[in-house]
Amino acid sequence: MPSSDRHPADGQDVGLLTPIVAGSRVEALTGDAAFVRGMLDAEAALTRAQAALGLAPSAAAAAVTAAAGQTSRFDVRDLALRARSGGNPVIPLVADLTAAVAGHDPEAAPYVHRGATSQDIWDTAAMLVAARALEPILADLDRTAAALARLAAEHRDTPMPGRTLTQHAVPTTFGLKAAGWRSLVTAARDRLAAVRAALPAQLGGAAGTLAAFQEHAAQEHAPQEHALRERRPESALRLLAAYTAETGLAEPALPWHTLRTPIADLAGALAFASGALGKLAADVLVLSRTEIGEVSENIGGGSSAMPQKANPVASVLIASAARQVPALAAVLYGSLAAEDERPPGAWHAEWQPMREALRLVGGSAAAAAELAEGLRAHPRRMGDNLDLTGGLIVSERLSVALAAELGRERAARAVKAAAHAVQTRAVQTRAVQARAEHGGAGLVAALLADPAVAAAFGEERLRELTDPAGYTGLAGVLVDRALGLAPGLAPGLPPGAPTGH
Amino acid sequence: MPSSDRHPADGQDVGLLTPIVAGSRVEALTGDAAFVRGMLDAEAALTRAQAALGLAPSAAAAAVTAAAGQTSRFDVRDLALRARSGGNPVIPLVADLTAAVAGHDPEAAPYVHRGATSQDIWDTAAMLVAARALEPILADLDRTAAALARLAAEHRDTPMPGRTLTQHAVPTTFGLKAAGWRSLVTAARDRLAAVRAALPAQLGGAAGTLAAFQEHAAQEHAPQEHALRERRPESALRLLAAYTAETGLAEPALPWHTLRTPIADLAGALAFASGALGKLAADVLVLSRTEIGEVSENIGGGSSAMPQKANPVASVLIASAARQVPALAAVLYGSLAAEDERPPGAWHAEWQPMREALRLVGGSAAAAAELAEGLRAHPRRMGDNLDLTGGLIVSERLSVALAAELGRERAARAVKAAAHAVQTRAVQTRAVQARAEHGGAGLVAALLADPAVAAAFGEERLRELTDPAGYTGLAGVLVDRALGLAPGLAPGLPPGAPTGH
Amino acid sequence: MPSSDRHPADGQDVGLLTPIVAGSRVEALTGDAAFVRGMLDAEAALTRAQAALGLAPSAAAAAVTAAAGQTSRFDVRDLALRARSGGNPVIPLVADLTAAVAGHDPEAAPYVHRGATSQDIWDTAAMLVAARALEPILADLDRTAAALARLAAEHRDTPMPGRTLTQHAVPTTFGLKAAGWRSLVTAARDRLAAVRAALPAQLGGAAGTLAAFQEHAAQEHAPQEHALRERRPESALRLLAAYTAETGLAEPALPWHTLRTPIADLAGALAFASGALGKLAADVLVLSRTEIGEVSENIGGGSSAMPQKANPVASVLIASAARQVPALAAVLYGSLAAEDERPPGAWHAEWQPMREALRLVGGSAAAAAELAEGLRAHPRRMGDNLDLTGGLIVSERLSVALAAELGRERAARAVKAAAHAVQTRAVQTRAVQARAEHGGAGLVAALLADPAVAAAFGEERLRELTDPAGYTGLAGVLVDRALGLAPGLAPGLPPGAPTGH
Amino acid sequence: MPSSDRHPADGQDVGLLTPIVAGSRVEALTGDAAFVRGMLDAEAALTRAQAALGLAPSAAAAAVTAAAGQTSRFDVRDLALRARSGGNPVIPLVADLTAAVAGHDPEAAPYVHRGATSQDIWDTAAMLVAARALEPILADLDRTAAALARLAAEHRDTPMPGRTLTQHAVPTTFGLKAAGWRSLVTAARDRLAAVRAALPAQLGGAAGTLAAFQEHAAQEHAPQEHALRERRPESALRLLAAYTAETGLAEPALPWHTLRTPIADLAGALAFASGALGKLAADVLVLSRTEIGEVSENIGGGSSAMPQKANPVASVLIASAARQVPALAAVLYGSLAAEDERPPGAWHAEWQPMREALRLVGGSAAAAAELAEGLRAHPRRMGDNLDLTGGLIVSERLSVALAAELGRERAARAVKAAAHAVQTRAVQTRAVQARAEHGGAGLVAALLADPAVAAAFGEERLRELTDPAGYTGLAGVLVDRALGLAPGLAPGLPPGAPTGH
Repeated sequence: MPSSDRHPADGQDVGLLTPIVAGSRVEALTGDAAFVRGMLDAEAALTRAQAALGLAPSAAAAAVTAAAGQTSRFDVRDLALRARSGGNPVIPLVADLTAAVAGHDPEAAPYVHRGATSQDIWDTAAMLVAARALEPILADLDRTAAALARLAAEHRDTPMPGRTLTQHAVPTTFGLKAAGWRSLVTAARDRLAAVRAALPAQLGGAAGTLAAFQEHAAQEHAPQEHALRERRPESALRLLAAYTAETGLAEPALPWHTLRTPIADLAGALAFASGALGKLAADVLVLSRTEIGEVSENIGGGSSAMPQKANPVASVLIASAARQVPALAAVLYGSLAAEDERPPGAWHAEWQPMREALRLVGGSAAAAAELAEGLRAHPRRMGDNLDLTGGLIVSERLSVALAAELGRERAARAVKAAAHAVQTRAVQTRAVQARAEHGGAGLVAALLADPAVAAAFGEERLRELTDPAGYTGLAGVLVDRALGLAPGLAPGLPPGAPTGH
Repeated sequence: MPSSDRHPADGQDVGLLTPIVAGSRVEALTGDAAFVRGMLDAEAALTRAQAALGLAPSAAAAAVTAAAGQTSRFDVRDLALRARSGGNPVIPLVADLTAAVAGHDPEAAPYVHRGATSQDIWDTAAMLVAARALEPILADLDRTAAALARLAAEHRDTPMPGRTLTQHAVPTTFGLKAAGWRSLVTAARDRLAAVRAALPAQLGGAAGTLAAFQEHAAQEHAPQEHALRERRPESALRLLAAYTAETGLAEPALPWHTLRTPIADLAGALAFASGALGKLAADVLVLSRTEIGEVSENIGGGSSAMPQKANPVASVLIASAARQVPALAAVLYGSLAAEDERPPGAWHAEWQPMREALRLVGGSAAAAAELAEGLRAHPRRMGDNLDLTGGLIVSERLSVALAAELGRERAARAVKAAAHAVQTRAVQTRAVQARAEHGGAGLVAALLADPAVAAAFGEERLRELTDPAGYTGLAGVLVDRALGLAPGLAPGLPPGAPTGH
Repeated sequence: MPSSDRHPADGQDVGLLTPIVAGSRVEALTGDAAFVRGMLDAEAALTRAQAALGLAPSAAAAAVTAAAGQTSRFDVRDLALRARSGGNPVIPLVADLTAAVAGHDPEAAPYVHRGATSQDIWDTAAMLVAARALEPILADLDRTAAALARLAAEHRDTPMPGRTLTQHAVPTTFGLKAAGWRSLVTAARDRLAAVRAALPAQLGGAAGTLAAFQEHAAQEHAPQEHALRERRPESALRLLAAYTAETGLAEPALPWHTLRTPIADLAGALAFASGALGKLAADVLVLSRTEIGEVSENIGGGSSAMPQKANPVASVLIASAARQVPALAAVLYGSLAAEDERPPGAWHAEWQPMREALRLVGGSAAAAAELAEGLRAHPRRMGDNLDLTGGLIVSERLSVALAAELGRERAARAVKAAAHAVQTRAVQTRAVQARAEHGGAGLVAALLADPAVAAAFGEERLRELTDPAGYTGLAGVLVDRALGLAPGLAPGLPPGAPTGH
Repeated sequence: MPSSDRHPADGQDVGLLTPIVAGSRVEALTGDAAFVRGMLDAEAALTRAQAALGLAPSAAAAAVTAAAGQTSRFDVRDLALRARSGGNPVIPLVADLTAAVAGHDPEAAPYVHRGATSQDIWDTAAMLVAARALEPILADLDRTAAALARLAAEHRDTPMPGRTLTQHAVPTTFGLKAAGWRSLVTAARDRLAAVRAALPAQLGGAAGTLAAFQEHAAQEHAPQEHALRERRPESALRLLAAYTAETGLAEPALPWHTLRTPIADLAGALAFASGALGKLAADVLVLSRTEIGEVSENIGGGSSAMPQKANPVASVLIASAARQVPALAAVLYGSLAAEDERPPGAWHAEWQPMREALRLVGGSAAAAAELAEGLRAHPRRMGDNLDLTGGLIVSERLSVALAAELGRERAARAVKAAAHAVQTRAVQTRAVQARAEHGGAGLVAALLADPAVAAAFGEERLRELTDPAGYTGLAGVLVDRALGLAPGLAPGLPPGAPTGH
């Protein structure tokens, strides 16, 4: 089959199996070409750093930088195929880059990849890809958090049923729900931003001792020899510092060929982010149900044959990502336990899961921003649903109030009897009508049938006590606190503690 | 950046991150284009099945089949992008297929996708992709098993150290090791073949009741109405049977939109296969170590700067796959617990992990076949290594033999003393030389220093007892049994029991 | 803190964190004491097998069997603590068993564990524990399947909304839903039963060659020497056969110290079972929601403060198990890739996950049986819910029917307009009342407002077409087929294909 | 079977399946009794906090505190069994605690658990358990890091082979290896300490609004009513602050019933720690191999029948834990995506995996401390192994040095020829002797056979260039930097960046 942009060659992927990712900014930043770009950036950074320290001619640095900048000249598929024999794509890339450099400046060619090992280049490339992919992710999380903050503020006092173990428990507010979502999104943002700031460059040579760099310096650049010698250790590490600066990444304390802290930290932050957005999606999916209808996605997918359907597609896809990322993170955490100076398998097992996790989180963040910005709340349906238990959703409050007047046991008996009356009536009549008719009215009537209750509480007081909107507790205050709207509400957290949960 | 075959568009993947997969037959069979082909095959099968039952004109079947056959006309990337809004790629594909059909035969267009739901088409496509991908996988497992059988037969009696918890325990043979590998490969083959034979087509309509198919029949094809009516149930299901037959897949008892047995069974068999090959790789990695050197890959990657290296690349890559597939399988097993007639997330979470698992196993099987066919065993190094403990690798045998003559306690004391002497000597001399010098000789000498041992056993008998090659137990018999070489050796397994472990 | 039955010593577990497991039959069969019993059974079986072949005195077999039978004499906690130094509990157990045997028959003591390695005993014990634990699991799955079959038959034609991506799609029947659940439970049962039948004993000695057994035979029992010699291989393996027969497990083709097929197969079947029951639980959780109310658990937990709550506790706990087992299975699949004749870590990593997976599935199966036997369906609520979209749940049917008379485009326009009218009305009025009032009536009225529709279809025909109960397709037939109630309905599956999905 | 301390009741666990955990401090701190203690501490803290705010009599606080302090009075097994019906152990615990309080002070009984929901108590208990369990873990990680720092300093310049993809690459030093291990352990410590400092108390009431606390205050304590009213929000949250202070945990910004940041953060840090220790174990396992012998555990398990074995048991068990914890963490990350105010399953699925992860990490940390403190390095074996490739381990250096004199191509040819000669010789002679004989001598001889090389380099210079000990690059400097031994070596990391990798 002829390959083309429109119809990819057999075996190539253009996003068909991951609608959450297809077309997102993060997709473009994590494709195979992005990794090639990362490797080329790393190679160029290395030669420039060597030139800056007098370990390579500046013409070589210029030639390598120029050749590496022509990313689209490199045949990515061919690199992929040639990666098979040595186990990684750096080996063929170095060959191609060297040839490209030699084509323009033969004297520069020996400075390509000088002293480096494949893992130096690949790990640096992976960190560059991660750093670049995290940019839109952080931006989308910010957008999501801002939209959720607006929803939380707007619906600070909009009552809705609180649900536990699938059942109505007591009322809450939609604002508190949105504020909770936002706190998770903010926490995800903070964790990813911290990880991003610490993504390190990689440079160590074949076994992480930087020996080849030192040897090259010693052999060819006698005047600079001391620069990489142990006697003056602070200068010995100047190459590492210069290379790191060229890449724009953080400088590692040690070569981390098998000290995979950065990968593991990234894995954890991505799993967190996916789950944080997954919570938002899980709630929207419940609240969007035909029977519940308290929110709807603005961007829901329709069905021509079934016009009643407004599928919460963004939430569906975010939820599908949240089912995958923890497993990918487990693979990455599992790669920490890797033997030797380069492990036979654990390193290679990181590449695809890391990319997939970045993509799924990136797609989820973009979808979440859209979702949050377009999410419509339906306060009337929330109100209707609050009435579904005929007022029993406030039985907790009623028990407390009645107990204060009648004593605990007598109150419990009264509430139980009234609950029974309401539920029996609901069964006897057609349930839907029962709900429409009653709201809390049936409960008040049932309570008034108890003389002790009637004596202690008038109908008006009972109406007030059974009004779900009156039993939202500190929901509003908690919203203010979570949004930082009221001074003095921030908890006295110990220094360094996360503020997002 | 202009996209091309050589340099893919941003975000597109051509195998750069999965050297184990790039270029393999299974890669081509599982690419995005293969899924499009699967969907088109499913659509064509459906229209043909309807035509066969008189529910559609045969011209429509021909038109849909023709349009669906022009796979490369469909813009896969565009389908991927348009999949976002409805959450799956079937919706835009149906639009494009309908347009293509209408271009040739407008009257055939309404018969495209008639009565079906997206999941019918996608699930059928996924099963077709899996069935096609399993072909080369099964063939490569067969090749691997055959090569391992040859190795096992050839080295039936080649002694080597048995290792437990990283330490030499007692001798074994390389033949037994290879026979064990083969038993796992055979077990993987059997499991995948069984799963493949049962991969079912999917057809159920919007909620799995086949109602729309029935309605179309009732409304438009009055004479055929009864064909899908409940009164004659055996004919009511004829469409399902006809569709299944057209796909070449197995016929399901029920639409399985949320009864994901096929996906779960596939997940388990793939995780098994990956682990089975991972065991082979794990052993080759150990035995290839510079210090051990008992086997080497024929296809190992070299290093220009380090000519002493012969990296066991196939094993490295197989090992990297074995670290990933169990996690992907966990996602797929996790998707069993899916609510409703189509779950909001669990279904979508299956696609990419299933594809990745197929690919990783496919790449691993291809690499394993190469590995097994090229694997070189080094009996001399095995022999050298058997001497590394100065004969102590047969101390178990020695304890038994001495106990028979001297009693258990006395024998234990003698063996312990001799072991101490051997080990002390190894420490005092340079270890490497000690090993070269001694073999079992030092142990025999140390034993002869014990008068009771010397009296009961002559030097010759002690040499015989301390010869590692003489203490391989039933290794040869077990090889024969595992390879089916000796009649009467097969265990009396209960009917239906697996024979591979 | 003094330890007691009531208040366990620090660090001991009595099920507090796993309510799904606590008190279940499988819990008792998988406790630490059950593993000790398994190890003792294995040791006794080994000595008896040796005696049967003349390799040990029958008095020794009797003495070991007697001592091993006094399970409660063994100090399990002490064994656990002493397991630390050698890495497994067999080593201290052998010491204690030997001492116990020696206490009664000093001459029998040397025959304890003769020729065996720790892994022989532990693996056999683990298989015995698994086989015993699977008994109640299989029985509970049978109970569950039977109860679900009854529900399916009873509600074969009870209409309810089919839901996809959280939205009402088209009607289905509760019978079809229950039949689907049953098919998964049956598939789980079949897979676990097949695994159970093949659970093998383990016997191989230090490195899987059975060498020590052969050596003992050769040294001490000259007349029987040939019994384990290679010249007569069919007799050489008699010890393995005899031992296996004593354990009641299946005979393995090879010692499987690092060929972990049985563990992996068990892992897969347990993950499948957990997910299968998880599907049942996921559906019950949705259908139990306060707003949906189509089913309720008979055994739901209540809340004193919130009498309206009837928590679907069994489903909650089954769902919690289904979230854990796939991850445990992934660990077990991961242990396939294990180096050497006993791997340093992969073997030890199997124990706790295998036990936990057995327990979670066992607890889930018991809960599912209770759940299925007590599940109450509420057809009236199902009917009410079918009306929630004002008849639009049958718009798919309507589109087909109208298209047959009016042409596809005209029909689509008519349905769209009517849908819009119904939805607008629902928004304008209070939603709940709108639902109660309309059912399909509003839709019929809206359709009749279209002259073309009114002309082609009378009100009565439209009422019929918009009756959800009339659009359940082949649901009833599928139930019959799945339950095996109608001859001739079974799909023509290829031999050996699973029938449950 | 009668239950006792020595022989637990069926189904109870005393650590038999987890030797890495049995007997460790963390085991005692995470047993079922520890969770009961945590729940009782939470209940007592709540009543005391209410009393401090005037919302309960101080006598009630005293009574609840006293009853809760008698931990051993509570029947843990009975609580576990009764947890089944409501789905969590708090419900029966509250009943028992209330009864215990009522036994001493009937008027105090109504103040037990007042206003709280089960999840408030359980989550707080889980955080208390985690905080307590992390104490010994942090201490053991500190011990481990200190011991590794000593090893790194002591062996700063001890050369050993650097190994990549199982093959000798270039030399490194054991000090750099130990410094790398230490950096991971330190990173693990930092991550766990940060998580521990932020572990929050939980208080929210039935749906996280704190409504019931407010209602109790309003109804019974009119003068204090305002304390929990919205008008004065800073005082409204005083109960949360007071309760938090009583528990000693951090104060959350919001009730986090379904905002599971603390659990996810803990999961990530535990997975990291397990992997960090797993890296140490993986290296020790390789270096302990019979053929390598560069390190040995001081505490290795022996085998009576095989005296040559010194199993690296601590590493084996740490490695077994590292295979499990990532999967457990995946379950915990997966629980982030939890619907409603209390999810039906995701919450319950956290308990056992969180406990297991704490335990496995705790046992691993204790074992790692022992391991690191007792680890013996064998510099002589390291030296012997450096000679195994006949000097080729420094071919990288040789290539650079020769290229400086002879030009790149000529140098490559010379090195290749010499390598070939060395390898041919190794094959021709018995490999082991070849190694012993040669070291780098054969390589020097082979190089001198090339006239150009001989001319440019004398034998002495070649000896120097082929001395592995002379090619350890910046290993020593990196050790100094990682240990903080040399001022000015710390990398210029951006503020807030982790310093451990």
